[in-house]
Amino acid sequence: MSRIFILNGPNLNLLGTREPSIYGTTTLAEIEAGLKAMADRAGAEIAFAQSNHEGVLVDLVQEKRDWADVFIVNAGAYTHTSVALRDALAATGKRLIEVHLSNVHRREAFRRHSYLSEIAEGVMAGFGPHVYRLALEYVLIKAERATP
Amino acid sequence: MSRIFILNGPNLNLLGTREPSIYGTTTLAEIEAGLKAMADRAGAEIAFAQSNHEGVLVDLVQEKRDWADVFIVNAGAYTHTSVALRDALAATGKRLIEVHLSNVHRREAFRRHSYLSEIAEGVMAGFGPHVYRLALEYVLIKAERATP
Amino acid sequence: MSRIFILNGPNLNLLGTREPSIYGTTTLAEIEAGLKAMADRAGAEIAFAQSNHEGVLVDLVQEKRDWADVFIVNAGAYTHTSVALRDALAATGKRLIEVHLSNVHRREAFRRHSYLSEIAEGVMAGFGPHVYRLALEYVLIKAERATP
Amino acid sequence: MSRIFILNGPNLNLLGTREPSIYGTTTLAEIEAGLKAMADRAGAEIAFAQSNHEGVLVDLVQEKRDWADVFIVNAGAYTHTSVALRDALAATGKRLIEVHLSNVHRREAFRRHSYLSEIAEGVMAGFGPHVYRLALEYVLIKAERATP
Amino acid sequence: MSRIFILNGPNLNLLGTREPSIYGTTTLAEIEAGLKAMADRAGAEIAFAQSNHEGVLVDLVQEKRDWADVFIVNAGAYTHTSVALRDALAATGKRLIEVHLSNVHRREAFRRHSYLSEIAEGVMAGFGPHVYRLALEYVLIKAERATP
Amino acid sequence: MSRIFILNGPNLNLLGTREPSIYGTTTLAEIEAGLKAMADRAGAEIAFAQSNHEGVLVDLVQEKRDWADVFIVNAGAYTHTSVALRDALAATGKRLIEVHLSNVHRREAFRRHSYLSEIAEGVMAGFGPHVYRLALEYVLIKAERATP
Amino acid sequence: MSRIFILNGPNLNLLGTREPSIYGTTTLAEIEAGLKAMADRAGAEIAFAQSNHEGVLVDLVQEKRDWADVFIVNAGAYTHTSVALRDALAATGKRLIEVHLSNVHRREAFRRHSYLSEIAEGVMAGFGPHVYRLALEYVLIKAERATP
Amino acid sequence: MSRIFILNGPNLNLLGTREPSIYGTTTLAEIEAGLKAMADRAGAEIAFAQSNHEGVLVDLVQEKRDWADVFIVNAGAYTHTSVALRDALAATGKRLIEVHLSNVHRREAFRRHSYLSEIAEGVMAGFGPHVYRLALEYVLIKAERATP
Amino acid sequence: MSRIFILNGPNLNLLGTREPSIYGTTTLAEIEAGLKAMADRAGAEIAFAQSNHEGVLVDLVQEKRDWADVFIVNAGAYTHTSVALRDALAATGKRLIEVHLSNVHRREAFRRHSYLSEIAEGVMAGFGPHVYRLALEYVLIKAERATP
Amino acid sequence: MSRIFILNGPNLNLLGTREPSIYGTTTLAEIEAGLKAMADRAGAEIAFAQSNHEGVLVDLVQEKRDWADVFIVNAGAYTHTSVALRDALAATGKRLIEVHLSNVHRREAFRRHSYLSEIAEGVMAGFGPHVYRLALEYVLIKAERATP
Amino acid sequence: MSRIFILNGPNLNLLGTREPSIYGTTTLAEIEAGLKAMADRAGAEIAFAQSNHEGVLVDLVQEKRDWADVFIVNAGAYTHTSVALRDALAATGKRLIEVHLSNVHRREAFRRHSYLSEIAEGVMAGFGPHVYRLALEYVLIKAERATP
Amino acid sequence: MSRIFILNGPNLNLLGTREPSIYGTTTLAEIEAGLKAMADRAGAEIAFAQSNHEGVLVDLVQEKRDWADVFIVNAGAYTHTSVALRDALAATGKRLIEVHLSNVHRREAFRRHSYLSEIAEGVMAGFGPHVYRLALEYVLIKAERATP
Repeated sequence: MSRIFILNGPNLNLLGTREPSIYGTTTLAEIEAGLKAMADRAGAEIAFAQSNHEGVLVDLVQEKRDWADVFIVNAGAYTHTSVALRDALAATGKRLIEVHLSNVHRREAFRRHSYLSEIAEGVMAGFGPHVYRLALEYVLIKAERATP
Repeated sequence: MSRIFILNGPNLNLLGTREPSIYGTTTLAEIEAGLKAMADRAGAEIAFAQSNHEGVLVDLVQEKRDWADVFIVNAGAYTHTSVALRDALAATGKRLIEVHLSNVHRREAFRRHSYLSEIAEGVMAGFGPHVYRLALEYVLIKAERATP
Repeated sequence: MSRIFILNGPNLNLLGTREPSIYGTTTLAEIEAGLKAMADRAGAEIAFAQSNHEGVLVDLVQEKRDWADVFIVNAGAYTHTSVALRDALAATGKRLIEVHLSNVHRREAFRRHSYLSEIAEGVMAGFGPHVYRLALEYVLIKAERATP
Repeated sequence: MSRIFILNGPNLNLLGTREPSIYGTTTLAEIEAGLKAMADRAGAEIAFAQSNHEGVLVDLVQEKRDWADVFIVNAGAYTHTSVALRDALAATGKRLIEVHLSNVHRREAFRRHSYLSEIAEGVMAGFGPHVYRLALEYVLIKAERATP
Repeated sequence: MSRIFILNGPNLNLLGTREPSIYGTTTLAEIEAGLKAMADRAGAEIAFAQSNHEGVLVDLVQEKRDWADVFIVNAGAYTHTSVALRDALAATGKRLIEVHLSNVHRREAFRRHSYLSEIAEGVMAGFGPHVYRLALEYVLIKAERATP
Repeated sequence: MSRIFILNGPNLNLLGTREPSIYGTTTLAEIEAGLKAMADRAGAEIAFAQSNHEGVLVDLVQEKRDWADVFIVNAGAYTHTSVALRDALAATGKRLIEVHLSNVHRREAFRRHSYLSEIAEGVMAGFGPHVYRLALEYVLIKAERATP
Repeated sequence: MSRIFILNGPNLNLLGTREPSIYGTTTLAEIEAGLKAMADRAGAEIAFAQSNHEGVLVDLVQEKRDWADVFIVNAGAYTHTSVALRDALAATGKRLIEVHLSNVHRREAFRRHSYLSEIAEGVMAGFGPHVYRLALEYVLIKAERATP
Repeated sequence: MSRIFILNGPNLNLLGTREPSIYGTTTLAEIEAGLKAMADRAGAEIAFAQSNHEGVLVDLVQEKRDWADVFIVNAGAYTHTSVALRDALAATGKRLIEVHLSNVHRREAFRRHSYLSEIAEGVMAGFGPHVYRLALEYVLIKAERATP
Repeated sequence: MSRIFILNGPNLNLLGTREPSIYGTTTLAEIEAGLKAMADRAGAEIAFAQSNHEGVLVDLVQEKRDWADVFIVNAGAYTHTSVALRDALAATGKRLIEVHLSNVHRREAFRRHSYLSEIAEGVMAGFGPHVYRLALEYVLIKAERATP
Repeated sequence: MSRIFILNGPNLNLLGTREPSIYGTTTLAEIEAGLKAMADRAGAEIAFAQSNHEGVLVDLVQEKRDWADVFIVNAGAYTHTSVALRDALAATGKRLIEVHLSNVHRREAFRRHSYLSEIAEGVMAGFGPHVYRLALEYVLIKAERATP
Repeated sequence: MSRIFILNGPNLNLLGTREPSIYGTTTLAEIEAGLKAMADRAGAEIAFAQSNHEGVLVDLVQEKRDWADVFIVNAGAYTHTSVALRDALAATGKRLIEVHLSNVHRREAFRRHSYLSEIAEGVMAGFGPHVYRLALEYVLIKAERATP
Repeated sequence: MSRIFILNGPNLNLLGTREPSIYGTTTLAEIEAGLKAMADRAGAEIAFAQSNHEGVLVDLVQEKRDWADVFIVNAGAYTHTSVALRDALAATGKRLIEVHLSNVHRREAFRRHSYLSEIAEGVMAGFGPHVYRLALEYVLIKAERATP
C-alpha cells in the first residue's frame, strides 16, 4: 500500500480566495478532501501540509521521509529559489512528482527554472487544481501495478 | 462533444522497440488503442498521427485545425527546434497540451527549452506512456464540465 | 482614510546599533515612532512589523492584505532572493512602495536586481532612515487628493 | 530580362484565412496574381512556390538556381531555424531579398535572429502583403537600369 | 492628405560624396528632390531634415509631431545608441518607418540592434538610396486607400 | 544656505502634454514653480534647466558645478546611454539625486541600467511629478540639519 | 563483415557542381563509387543515401538501424540544427562517425556547435572529399581487427 | 580566550543518518562532542546550533554577534541562496570560516557560487566531518598566538 | 607636410581644473600650446578642437576630413557610446590615433569597450597629458620617413 | 605508510619576501621544514617542489605519480589557467588536495575558477601558511585510520 | 617530397601507460615508429617531438618552420589554453592538421574550444592512436597529387 | 637614475623575419640597440630579455624585481592567458608599461582581454616597432622630472 505526502509551498493557502478568475474558487482544503477520497478508494494512505516557510517545508519533508513512498510537491515560489528544499527531498531517496497550477513557461522568465525538476520523476504545470488529481492518479496506477 | 488530435513527432514511431528498459515495451499503436477506448467511453472523437518530418507535422496541424478542439502534442525533438510547428499550432487558435515521455529536465541542457510551452495550456514531462492518458483525462474532464 | 503597513526584512532590527557611521544611530523603533506621528497628523492608520524570516514576512503580508491600502516594504536581503514575498505582495492587489536605506546600485552586483521592483508603484534607494518618511509622505499626499 | 522566384515558407499558405484582423483577407494566390501582373508589365519572368517543408524549400531553391536571377524569400519560421535553407540560397550565387509580413522585431525575442539576413542584399519586415510588391518593385527597377 | 517627415541622422549629409563605390553618387539633396516629386504627384505633403546631433533630431521630431502623419527615419548610427530619439518618436503617437541604406545585418554585430525597430511599423535595410522611395511608396499606397 | 540645480533631460519638456493619462497634465513649468516655492520657503536657492541635447546637459552641469551644492537630475533617456553626463556630474564632486517619473523597472529591460545610479546618493523612480518634490524635501531636510 | 551506411544531408547533392574552386569538381556519385570500391576490396557492405529533408534523413537512419554496424554521417546544415537526427542516430545504438568537408571552425560561429558530436565516436572536419575515405578507412581497420 | 560559534544549516541535522556511504555514520551530535573536547583542551569557549530555517540562522547569528569571536559556518544549501545570512554575518564584524563537508566544485553548477565566501577569512570544502576539526584547529592556533 | 587634427571630447575642457591630484594642473590650452610648438618644429600643420557635444564632434570631423592627414582623438566618454563619431572618423578614410589620459582598463567595466579602437591605427591609454605628445611624436616620425 | 608530494606553483618561491604585511614573513623553506617535521612524527614520507614553469610542474607530477599517494598542490596562478596540470594530476589516479594561501573568492573574478577543484578531494583557501599544515594533517589522519 | 612534423603536447608521453582501458597500450614511440614506416614508404621525410612545456612547443615549431611543409599537432591540454602555440604555428605559414585521440566534444565543456582549429586545414578528434595515421595518410595523398 | 627592463614574450624573437609586410624588417636586436642608445643618452640603465616560455618570463621578472624601476612588457600571446606573469609583475611593486606592436582591438576577440592592463600604468597598442621607443620616452621623461 502506497503512502503519499502532498506538500504545498508559499501562498498556496490562499487558493480559492486569491484571483478566483484565474485559479477558480476551489480552496486548498476542498482539493485535499477530493484527493483524500481518491486515495481512500485506492486503499492508499495520504497526508497533507502547507507552509509559507522554507524551513518548515524542509522540516516536514524530513519528518515524512521514512513514512512516505511518494512526494507530490507544489513548492510555489520556492520552486525557483530553494536549494534547501531540493536537498531535503533528494535526501529522502523517495519518488518526487513536481506540480504547478499555472503553466510556469508563460509567466516571468525566472519561473522557468526549477530546482526540483532535475530530481523529480515527472513534472506537470498548468492544469489548475486538476494537477494534483492527475499526479495522484499517476502514483496510484503505478502503485497498483507494483502490488502483487 | 470534444474532438481531440494526438500528434507525435520524430522517433516516437520506435516506441516500444527502442530502449525498452527505459521506455517500456508498449508500442505507439497500443497506446493509441488505449486512448481510443478512453475517448469512446467519454463520447469524444479522437484522431492520431505521427511523423518524422517537421513539414508533415505542420501540414497535419493545418489539416486538423478546423476539426480539432484540442491538440495533445509530443513533438519529440522538434519541441526544441521547430518554430514552424509552434506557428502552425498557434494559428489554430485551439487548446494545446504538451507532453513528453521522459523528464526533459534531467537530460541534456538543450532539452530544457521548448518552443511549445509558451503557447500551451499545460505541460507534462516524465510519466512514460501514462503521460498521454493523463493528458487525455484532463481534456475529457474539462469537456465534460463544459457540456450542458 | 488610508491604512498603511510598513514591513521590514532581515537585519533591519539592528538599525541604529549596526555600523552607526553608515546608518546613523536612529533605531527602527524611533523611526516607527516618527512615522506613527506623521500618520496620526494625517488621520491615517499605520502598522509596523519586522522579521528575519522570509516565511513570517509572507504570513504578515497575507494577514494584512485586506486591512492595508498600501505596503511600504524594505525587504532587505530578501529583495534580491524572495519570489515568495513578491508573490505574497502581488496577491494582495494593493499598492506597493519599495524602499532601501542604502543606494543598492553602489554595492555588490547581486543587489542590483530586485524581485519587488517590477510589481511596485515606486522605488526609493539610498536616503538613509529618511526613506521611510519620504515614502509615507508620498502615500499620504496621494490619499489626501483621493479623499472627497 | 529578369527571372524572379518568389518563395514562401511554412504557414504562409494560410494567408488571408488566418487571423484576418492582423494579416488582412488577401490570400497568397491573390498576392501572387498581383505580382505576376507587375512582372508581366515589366517584361520579367516570375515563378512562385510555397511549402511547409524545409527540405522541399531547399529542393525548390536548388531547382531554380540556374533559372532565377533573384530570390525573394519569406521563409516564415524557417528564417530563424534553417541553416539548410541559408546554405541552399548561398549556393545559388544569386541575389536574395528577404521579406516578412510582420515586423519581427516587435515579436518574440527568437524572431530577431535570421539566418538569411547575413546573405541577403536587403531585408524588409512589417509591411503586410505589400512587402512582396515593394521587394519586386526594387528588383524590377534595378533590372531596368542594368538593361542596355 | 498625408503629411510625411523624412528624417536623416549622422553622416547621411555625406551621401553621394563618401565611398561612392558603395553608396553611389546620388546626394541626399537629389534623393530628397526625387521624393518631393513623388509626394507631389500623390498630393501628399513632405518635409525633410538631417542632423548629426542627437538632440537636434529629438527637437525636430518634437516640432513635427503634430504636423506629420508618418515619420520615415534613417537614424544612422543613432539607430543603435539613442534611446532619446526612440522616446521622442514614440511620444508622437504617429506611424514610423525605419530605413537603412545598407543591410545592417552584414556589418558589425553592434549594428544588429536597433532601438527604433520595436516601435516601428516596418523596417527596410539594404536597398541603397532606393530605400527611401520604397518606404514612401508604401506610405502613399496606405494613405490612398484610407482616403474616402 | 543650499543651492540646488534641477536638471531635466530629453523629452521632459513635453511633460503635461504627452500621454496625460500616464503622466498627468502638470507641465514642467508648473512643477518648477512648485519647487521654486518650496525652496523659497526653506530659504534655499534653486535653478532649473532642460535640454534634449546630451552636450547641452554636460555644458549645464559644468556651468553650475561651482554654484550648486546638490544636483537633482532626471536624465530621461540619457540615464541609460550617457557616460558623458555621468562624467560631468562626477567631476562636480557635488551631491547627486537621481529621479524618474515612471518606475523604470516595469518598462523595457534597457531602462533597468542607469549610468548615474552608481555615482548618486540616492535614486527615486516611479512617483510621477511628486518625485521632484520628494527629492527636494530630502535635500532641504539634510541642509537644515547641517545649518548651525 | 562490416555493414556501413554513408548518409549525406542537405545541399551535398550539389557537390562537384557548387563552388568548384572550394569543393573541387568531384561529384557525390564519384565519391560514392570510390567508397564502394574500397568497401568491396575490404569485403564490407556499404550503402549510400542523401536527402535535403531532415525527416527523410531520420527515416533513413531508422530503416538502416538494424542493418548497419556503423553510420558515417555528413549532416551538412542539419549538424547544427537537428535534434531529431541526433535522436534517430542515438536510438540505433550503433557507431557513428561525423564528417564535414570543410573545417567548420573557420566559418560562421553557428557552425561550431554540432548536435552529433556528443554522440559520435569521432569527428573529422576539413579534408574535402577525402574525409569520407579517411572515415571509411578507420572503420575498415577497426572491423578487420575485430574479425576472428 | 576565544569564543567560537559553530553554525550548521539545512539538512545537516541528518548527518550520520543520510547517505552514510557518502557522509559516514558520525552524527552531528558526535561531531559537536569532539569539537567541544578540542575547545576545552585549548581553554576556548564553544557553542553550537543547527537549523533548517534561514530566518532562525539569521536570528542565531544576531544573538551571538557580541559573544562570539569567530563563526565557523556550514550553511548547507543557504550558502548558495541566502543574502540574509551573509548580511547577518557581515554585520557582526567578526571572523568567519566557511566549511562544507563535500567538495562543492564536483557537484551541480549552482553549488559553485557562495554568498559567504566573499566575506569569509577562509573556505574549506570536501573533507567530510573532518572539516569542522580543521577549521577549529586553525582558529585555536591563531587565538593561541594572539594571546599574550 | 603632415596636417594633424587633435580632437577632444566631453569634459576634457576641464583638464587641469578637475581633480588635479589625478590629472595634474596642466590645462588643455597649455597642452595644445606644447603640441603646436612640436608641430611647428617638425614643419607640420596642426589644429585643435574640443566639444562636449557628440554632434559637434561629428561636424568637426566632417569639416576636417579633407584637410587632415591624421586624427588624434581623445573622445572621452563618447569613446564608449558613440557609433556616430566612429562612423564619421571611418568615413574620412584618414589615419586615426586613439588616446586616453587614464588607463581605461583600471576603471569601470564599461570603459573597456571602445567604438574607436577597431578603426584606429593605434591606441594609447594611461600616460596622463603626455599621451598627446607621444601620439604626435609617432605621427611626426612616420610623416618624416614618408617625406621624400 | 603515506607518501605525500607538496607542489607549489608560480611566484610561491617569493613567499615570506613578497608583501609580508599580507603573507607574513615565513618563507617557503621554513614552511617545508615544518611540514617535514610533521610528516616525520607521523612516520610518513614527504617531498617538496616548486616551479614557475607550467611544463616543469607537469613533469614533476608525472615523475611522482607512482611514488606519491597524495598530492597537496598550491598551483598559484596556474590554478586558473592550466588544463595541462589538471590532466597530469588526473592521470596519476591519486588523491589531490588543493590549497591556496589567500581566499581566492575575495580577489579578482578570474580567480574564482579553478581547473583543479573538479578533480580534487578537497579544497582549502585563505588560511595563510597554515593551509599546508591543515591539509597535511587531514592527509595524515586519514592515512592513520586506513593503517591496520 | 613532403616534410612532416608531428608534434605532441603535454601528457602524451604517457600514452600506452596511462588509462590503457581508454587509450590502449600502444606507446607514443610505437606510434611514431609506425608513422615513420608510412612516411618512408611514401618517400616523405618525417620528424617527431613531444613536450610538456608550452614554451618548448613554441620553440620546436619555430625551429621547424622552414623545414616542415605540414604540421600534424596534438597539442593536448594546450589546445584549449595556448595562444602562444597558435601564434607560432600561424607564423610558419605552413599547413596544419589538428588531431586528438579522444572525442573532445564528449568531455568537459572547456575542451570544446580549440585555439588551433581556426588556423588548421582540418581537425580530427576521437579515433584513438589511429588519428595520427589518418592525418598522415591525408597529407601524403595530397602531397602525391601535387607532385609532378 | 632609472633602470628599465624591456621584456618580450613568445614569438617576438621572430620580429623582422616574420610577415615583414606587416611588422617591417627591423629585428628585435635592432630595436634593442636603438633603445639602448636612447637610454644611454638619457643616462638610464636598460636591460632586455625575450622568451617563448611563460615560466622563464616569470623567472626573469623575479630576478629583475629589485633592480628595475620600470618594466616595459610586450607579453605577446601571454598577455591574454598568463595570470602567472601578471602575478609576478604585480609582486614587484614597480611601474609597468604594457606595449603591443599591433592594434589588438582589430584582431581576434580573444586578444581584447589582457591580464596585464589592470595592473599597468599605461597601455600602447598598434604602433609597430615604434611602440617600444614611445614607451621608453615616456619613462625617461617621467624619470627626468622626478630627478632633483
